[in-house]
Amino acid sequence: MEFSSKLLENAVYEISQLPGIGKRTALRLVLHLLRQPKEQTERLSFALQNLRNEIRYCKNCYNISDVEWCEICANPKREESLVCVVEDIRDVMAIENTGQYTGHYHVLGGKISPLDGIGPGELNIEPLVRKVEKGVVKEIIFALSSTMEGDTTNFYIYKQVHPYGVKTSTIARGIAVGDELEYADEVTLGRSILNRIPFENSLKS
Amino acid sequence: MEFSSKLLENAVYEISQLPGIGKRTALRLVLHLLRQPKEQTERLSFALQNLRNEIRYCKNCYNISDVEWCEICANPKREESLVCVVEDIRDVMAIENTGQYTGHYHVLGGKISPLDGIGPGELNIEPLVRKVEKGVVKEIIFALSSTMEGDTTNFYIYKQVHPYGVKTSTIARGIAVGDELEYADEVTLGRSILNRIPFENSLKS
Ligand SMILES: [Zn+2]
Ligand SMILES: [Zn+2]
Repeated sequence: MEFSSKLLENAVYEISQLPGIGKRTALRLVLHLLRQPKEQTERLSFALQNLRNEIRYCKNCYNISDVEWCEICANPKREESLVCVVEDIRDVMAIENTGQYTGHYHVLGGKISPLDGIGPGELNIEPLVRKVEKGVVKEIIFALSSTMEGDTTNFYIYKQVHPYGVKTSTIARGIAVGDELEYADEVTLGRSILNRIPFENSLKS
Repeated sequence: MEFSSKLLENAVYEISQLPGIGKRTALRLVLHLLRQPKEQTERLSFALQNLRNEIRYCKNCYNISDVEWCEICANPKREESLVCVVEDIRDVMAIENTGQYTGHYHVLGGKISPLDGIGPGELNIEPLVRKVEKGVVKEIIFALSSTMEGDTTNFYIYKQVHPYGVKTSTIARGIAVGDELEYADEVTLGRSILNRIPFENSLKS
């Protein structure tokens, strides 16, 4: 694509760096912004920079949170001995939407993926093991998507926490294997939490 | 969607204001930015604001251009007496890609669309009529998409310029009716420019 303006080319280039957005779509988005009042572009730019610079994570579960302890961790009605291990905030939101879950979460921030250079050290695994060690956590529910990376991550954590006698389970696979949690319907996802199975059982398949 | 962070909610909201981007996609894009270095978000924000605040249009054809006269209008080899009327820069880029066209453009910036509150006064129609009046323009090629809004706009301009004896044509419809120019293949689009027909003929269909 040849552009008649460097400013335009640059804006299109930066937008097309986002996943799933090609140059053509980027140009369409940029032309849309040009037809809107300047304030819309300002608000968008400010919101993105503000989030990126001020982002904070809950000190207990590592979910995105504007305060030190997120609403879930700060809620005395939620069982802190039960922890659901998820990849990111989308999984937390999906499970919260079911209204079926009363425990805490632990947000890993990704899955172990050697090909992408993500080892256990890049994820929030260590603090989870510490909580198990201290006896705070009695049961862990693995809710990562059932891909090879998800299975690898589950098993890595399992090996670390198993010696402490913690109960481990995985959410019931009412959800199709390989599907992302956030696309599951609420009923299926809610049921898969209630019918969770011991992690050891999931290894037999 | 309920968010655990106002910063996150705000960023997702602003991105989802863009056309064709829902909240779910917006959240995916925002989480991607959070995993990238801060500099990427900075560059994106800066590029958008810079474009929006510094955007300039060619004084002759109204295409986006960083200089007063765009490269096409400033090129003495391009015929200024032949003007192709298009909606926006995407159409200019599509026609330039064919390598078939040697005239100038006139970028309207949209189509007449009373439902969207876009009348002739919101578009760059007046300066085109002035160029015809001065005798600079001898032939106009209408290349707006053949929708009702495109036809209305063509006809509005036709009525304004016809009294001056200017030749008017529309690009040959090798392109499917209703299709956008930018999605046409180069050969078809190039041919449709070469085989343009007198505008009067296009009214008979
Ligand atoms: Zn928390
Ligand atoms: Zn120009």
